[in-house]
Amino acid sequence: MNNTFIHPTADFTLEFADMNITPAQIDALRDKFVAAHQGIMDIEAGKIKNPDENRKVTHFTDRIAYPKSDLFKAVEKFASEIREGKIKGSTGQKITQVVINGIGGSALGPQLLQFAINGPYWNELSEDQRKHNCKIYFVDNTDTAGVADLLPVLNLESTLIVSISKSGGTQETKNNMFAFMHAYAEKNLNFAAHAAAITMRDSELDKLSRGTGWLAVFEMAESIGGRTSETSIVGHLPAALAGINFAKFLEGACEMDTWTRQPDALKNPAYMLALSWYIAGNGKGDKNMIIVPYSDRLLLFSRYLQQLVMESLGKEFDLDGKPVFQGLNVFGNKGGTDAHAFIQQLHDGRNDFFTIFIEPLKDALNVPVKDLITMGDYLHGFETGLATALRNRGRQLIQIRIPEVSEYYLGMLIAMFERAVAYYAELIHINAFHQPGVQAYKKAASVNIALNTQLQTALAQIAPFAGTAAAITEKAGIDRNVTRDVEALLAKFVANPSRPLNGFKVTKIWSEGEWNYTVQKA
Amino acid sequence: MNNTFIHPTADFTLEFADMNITPAQIDALRDKFVAAHQGIMDIEAGKIKNPDENRKVTHFTDRIAYPKSDLFKAVEKFASEIREGKIKGSTGQKITQVVINGIGGSALGPQLLQFAINGPYWNELSEDQRKHNCKIYFVDNTDTAGVADLLPVLNLESTLIVSISKSGGTQETKNNMFAFMHAYAEKNLNFAAHAAAITMRDSELDKLSRGTGWLAVFEMAESIGGRTSETSIVGHLPAALAGINFAKFLEGACEMDTWTRQPDALKNPAYMLALSWYIAGNGKGDKNMIIVPYSDRLLLFSRYLQQLVMESLGKEFDLDGKPVFQGLNVFGNKGGTDAHAFIQQLHDGRNDFFTIFIEPLKDALNVPVKDLITMGDYLHGFETGLATALRNRGRQLIQIRIPEVSEYYLGMLIAMFERAVAYYAELIHINAFHQPGVQAYKKAASVNIALNTQLQTALAQIAPFAGTAAAITEKAGIDRNVTRDVEALLAKFVANPSRPLNGFKVTKIWSEGEWNYTVQKA
Repeated sequence: MNNTFIHPTADFTLEFADMNITPAQIDALRDKFVAAHQGIMDIEAGKIKNPDENRKVTHFTDRIAYPKSDLFKAVEKFASEIREGKIKGSTGQKITQVVINGIGGSALGPQLLQFAINGPYWNELSEDQRKHNCKIYFVDNTDTAGVADLLPVLNLESTLIVSISKSGGTQETKNNMFAFMHAYAEKNLNFAAHAAAITMRDSELDKLSRGTGWLAVFEMAESIGGRTSETSIVGHLPAALAGINFAKFLEGACEMDTWTRQPDALKNPAYMLALSWYIAGNGKGDKNMIIVPYSDRLLLFSRYLQQLVMESLGKEFDLDGKPVFQGLNVFGNKGGTDAHAFIQQLHDGRNDFFTIFIEPLKDALNVPVKDLITMGDYLHGFETGLATALRNRGRQLIQIRIPEVSEYYLGMLIAMFERAVAYYAELIHINAFHQPGVQAYKKAASVNIALNTQLQTALAQIAPFAGTAAAITEKAGIDRNVTRDVEALLAKFVANPSRPLNGFKVTKIWSEGEWNYTVQKA
Repeated sequence: MNNTFIHPTADFTLEFADMNITPAQIDALRDKFVAAHQGIMDIEAGKIKNPDENRKVTHFTDRIAYPKSDLFKAVEKFASEIREGKIKGSTGQKITQVVINGIGGSALGPQLLQFAINGPYWNELSEDQRKHNCKIYFVDNTDTAGVADLLPVLNLESTLIVSISKSGGTQETKNNMFAFMHAYAEKNLNFAAHAAAITMRDSELDKLSRGTGWLAVFEMAESIGGRTSETSIVGHLPAALAGINFAKFLEGACEMDTWTRQPDALKNPAYMLALSWYIAGNGKGDKNMIIVPYSDRLLLFSRYLQQLVMESLGKEFDLDGKPVFQGLNVFGNKGGTDAHAFIQQLHDGRNDFFTIFIEPLKDALNVPVKDLITMGDYLHGFETGLATALRNRGRQLIQIRIPEVSEYYLGMLIAMFERAVAYYAELIHINAFHQPGVQAYKKAASVNIALNTQLQTALAQIAPFAGTAAAITEKAGIDRNVTRDVEALLAKFVANPSRPLNGFKVTKIWSEGEWNYTVQKA
């Protein structure tokens, strides 16, 4: 059995020896190989193969043609016009700061690429050091702190707000957009002249942005899912604005695609990756996958993979509608740092994981430490040392080596894991490309927003009133089964005395072992 | 059974109802309660209770006295003299940038506090916005990129390098220190005048720093472990230099300590936390603990807990020397962001986890989104919505609510988890305060450094030579069992052509399915 996969031109290496996979384990899966490969080929051929979701999945193939597309050229042109100051802000200032407003698949890829290619201190570099590319900031949640923290470092007159939402209706992203709209309005600045969007045609965001004359609107294909959108327009625009060579990134991804179209699973590193997950976790994800890049620049890679893998594979039903409760846990941070954190447990404790080391070989500096040995030798020594220590304990390990952290190798890495995830999904017979659980969550959240409105409406009527959450729930005519949620809303109101409420205010005091709330007219 | 724990003065709430713990499950553990509580009391009384480690564990108690100590005053004085420009750099410039050089327990706590209290953009704020406190940077690994990325944004003349290593011999931290020494030397600047240290008395770092006249050296107690050092000098100096109110932080920690000295496990929230871990994971960590703070500012909390929990609990042997392979996996990021990432799996997939939500209630901004509803209401709605959705799926959940993210509440949170970890360790009868696995790893890493030296010495002698890694290993007289490690070192040499080597250079070409290396005299 071949444990070592080397792409000689790219000098990209995967080593599976420490997964301790036996030929018998591979043989037991052989009957799945052909169908699983055919599944991937069907996806690439544009077949609609997931019965519970009526759409094509095109991220593997779109990236081949994308660099020659009009959209690609439009993005590069837009970025260079910003860089050269041809496109200016509403008051004539050069655009030097970009806020990427998106969540999940609209944030994790751009964050990964920005951090990996431009490093952690990009925004502190001078205009010259940045080669006149923009500073890049992210709001990737709906926490007001995310916006409040950012506003003091932005000059709104020289800022571009890029809102990314495939559906165009993502509430978190919409909220951030509102927050920035308010900030621009407060300074009497024209938000539209500082706004760009990436979304599907005819979405809510598409209509808003085109209808109100935003600076730019870029279209996102329906057939590209959020968590596999980094090689599309979603990855491209943020990268281009920060001077990242996106064509090189795509070249790496396509090279990996080419390498991993090999039908023979045992000669295909992406398939072998998926097989090793399958065998390690009994086809059910019984072992956690721990991602440890030996690189400060790759800090966000585990977070990126956490979404790609867990949102794709964490499914209740298989393609036949049978409940399977699948999944594969992913976490990690960076080596050697993690050796001073959770790796104590990996070495000594529960044997409930396999780990993937990713080692870029090129050092950023030559720092001599002792005779013949540099600082980079130590990072390598810690990687090899930990590999040895884990191997000696019978812990499972995959080692990946790449020459350096660059656009090209990020493209290779992302494409490899995308293909491994898709193939693994075929092996376990699930749809990797939907996220039904997120719908249940959104629905439950909207119930809470409705309760908030109901409570505020009721409190305005019953004020003045004092009592426990249970008493208020009853007085307000709200279902007593949600008393806990009412109490949490009351706590939220109390913690935000300056917030707008429906003509009342709330305070609380502790009395006889519980909170008593006083509702007064404001 | 009491599921809700409220500290009324602090307005700190824990809700365990969704752990679905039954009275029978609690009763089954009652025989452990007294001994476990006594174990904690013994630690606080200064007993040496871990037979495999002959030292006291004093972080729970030292923080009571610390604010009145001379060391505390010395740190505050040092920080204010830096702030006021009384202490200057070697060329007379005001110190405005601080690099914290430490790894694991010497980095995670300071990083958490800095990010949570001062936010993600602190270093981009103006001197006035920072109230003349220093910018804070971290090097927390031994990756040369960590230093190389930082150097362009530092003005070395106005920078202070703080090296933190309890043992004083941590190789990663030493390497970074060397890198900065080189950087200062290259500019003909006196490093010692820009250097401070935190370490144990008489350590290698202590001797170096005192012997060469560093600006300041602060002593760290032997009885405080790295991962529980955030309430000690390790947390204090970085915080003070960034204007963080460390006394308030300690006040919160001590308030939590007071609350959780309650002997009755069912009235003690830290004990209840540990019991819920125990029951959920069958006393063996069978379920992953997923930490989801609904707060951008608390992004690093899961990483902090990952170390605190996994390094403390991930142990091979119990206190009687019996192999137990214990542990408790910890990961997480932040909500609602994570709902667009891994929470699909939590909702629909494997039921192999419990999750802890932490919700700070105070919004940073009032952003109206629709009638009566603000952006902050949405964050709360997403928290409650996900809690409801997970509850409806029978997934286990603990909810923590705090009024806001502040020094005080970080103190409470950290102390609570510290005490839960210590109590859990008593329940499972292990030593939570050592990390024997890290020793094995360090030893294996030093073997690789020795191999590197051996290989370089041999290559200088055999050059010119060409062949595979196996041929080179044999020719160099190196054990053929480490051929893989030799090949990895050769790859490292090839990837770094400008690095110093022992009078030779290496290139490689792909030939007949393997790498062929050419070693030449340099």
